[in-house]
Amino acid sequence: MKRSEEFYNLMNKRRSVRTFSSEPVPMDVIKNIVNTAGTAPSGAHTEPWTFVVVTSMDVKQKIRAIIEEEEEINYKKRMGKVWTTDLKPLRTTWIKEYLTEAPCLILLFKQMYSFREDNKKKLHYYNEQSTSIAGGFLLTAIHYAGLVSLTSTPLNSGPALRALLGRPSSEKLTLLFPVGYPSKDCLVPDLERKPVDQIMVEV
Amino acid sequence: MKRSEEFYNLMNKRRSVRTFSSEPVPMDVIKNIVNTAGTAPSGAHTEPWTFVVVTSMDVKQKIRAIIEEEEEINYKKRMGKVWTTDLKPLRTTWIKEYLTEAPCLILLFKQMYSFREDNKKKLHYYNEQSTSIAGGFLLTAIHYAGLVSLTSTPLNSGPALRALLGRPSSEKLTLLFPVGYPSKDCLVPDLERKPVDQIMVEV
Ligand SMILES: Cc1cc2nc3c(=O)[nH]c(=O)nc-3n(C[C@H](O)[C@H](O)[C@H](O)COP(=O)(O)O)c2cc1C
Ligand SMILES: Cc1cc2nc3c(=O)[nH]c(=O)nc-3n(C[C@H](O)[C@H](O)[C@H](O)COP(=O)(O)O)c2cc1C
Repeated sequence: MKRSEEFYNLMNKRRSVRTFSSEPVPMDVIKNIVNTAGTAPSGAHTEPWTFVVVTSMDVKQKIRAIIEEEEEINYKKRMGKVWTTDLKPLRTTWIKEYLTEAPCLILLFKQMYSFREDNKKKLHYYNEQSTSIAGGFLLTAIHYAGLVSLTSTPLNSGPALRALLGRPSSEKLTLLFPVGYPSKDCLVPDLERKPVDQIMVEV
Repeated sequence: MKRSEEFYNLMNKRRSVRTFSSEPVPMDVIKNIVNTAGTAPSGAHTEPWTFVVVTSMDVKQKIRAIIEEEEEINYKKRMGKVWTTDLKPLRTTWIKEYLTEAPCLILLFKQMYSFREDNKKKLHYYNEQSTSIAGGFLLTAIHYAGLVSLTSTPLNSGPALRALLGRPSSEKLTLLFPVGYPSKDCLVPDLERKPVDQIMVEV
């Protein structure tokens, strides 16, 4: 009872952060966090995930250029009025400073298949779900370590980022997490979470 | 550094458990666990999840009957040789005793849309990913509380389970988690996890 309450109180303090300090994060901490994500369950134990950890400013700048170019088109043309209205409370735009400000970006790729020893394709059942669950493990580990992150889905930028990072065509980008410490003047949107009786039904 | 290592060591002890003791879990603990899952991020803060918590033996039996009927067809006809071979190391069958043995089942539904105040449909972007991430939060909370679970995907049973539990057509079952304590004679498959250099790439 106490343990479950303690963990809830800790996790309930997590918020998505969009302005970062440039203070670096030790690579050993990042390794522990990625390793924690790797303890997640996966369909038929396929472990269908690759975590690309980017700390080089040069590569972060290239990532930012790719994403901002696509996001500008998304916001101006592709998303439509309903979507941009839904996003208003978050005050997000196509400018993504966190992509170069954060000391570290973790790009999470799902592996749709791999190759067996006899070179036959091995399909990864439920790779999308397994990878997202591992993303959940990653976020709890980031928060537990006293760091902050943002869960983001760079719409339409997947193929260009995959090419930039040299990932094989069996992989697809699913989530991108900047990781670090919040900037001094960091603000987060004023959001509330649903109370338990709105998300839980007892039978 | 210490915190990240501590959390990794704790989570690395998590295993999927398929034989449960019938010892009940206090509902307050379940509530904390579900609440923790509810702290997960979600696309445009839609919180697109419903956690149906089943403790009634009568309903657990109905759930088991629905799933075992479908699973028998899955294993015997639908899955094909490759899939059943991939599952062999796990020694799973279509008999799912844990569905009645475990004191509590948590069925996680994703909400594909909801209704705005003016009764217009509000689409939930990324509901599948958000819900799976919340499933990841749920699993870390279960493990942190000293309980065990299994991540399962009852193939083809979603619509019948949705009807049984009275969930609306805007929702789809994504994952089912039995939750409780392991049985005394509990064994888990002898699996290894990939080392960090096989899941992480530094750039
Ligand atoms: C999306 C997903 C679906 C799964 N479906 C099933 C399932 O239907 N039945 C089952 O027995 N195990 C299922 N598993 C559990 C995996 O077999 C298990 O996580 C894997 O063998 C690794 O073992 P571990 O969780 O003990 O690390 C599933 C896991 C995931 C992530
Ligand atoms: C699947 C998914 C995709 C998301 N995509 C974006 C994104 O592209 N850009 C962004 O700024 N936030 C994104 N978010 C973050 C959400 O806006 C945020 O989680 C939500 O507003 C709730 O805030 P909180 O995380 O602080 O609780 C995403 C979250 C999820 C789960």
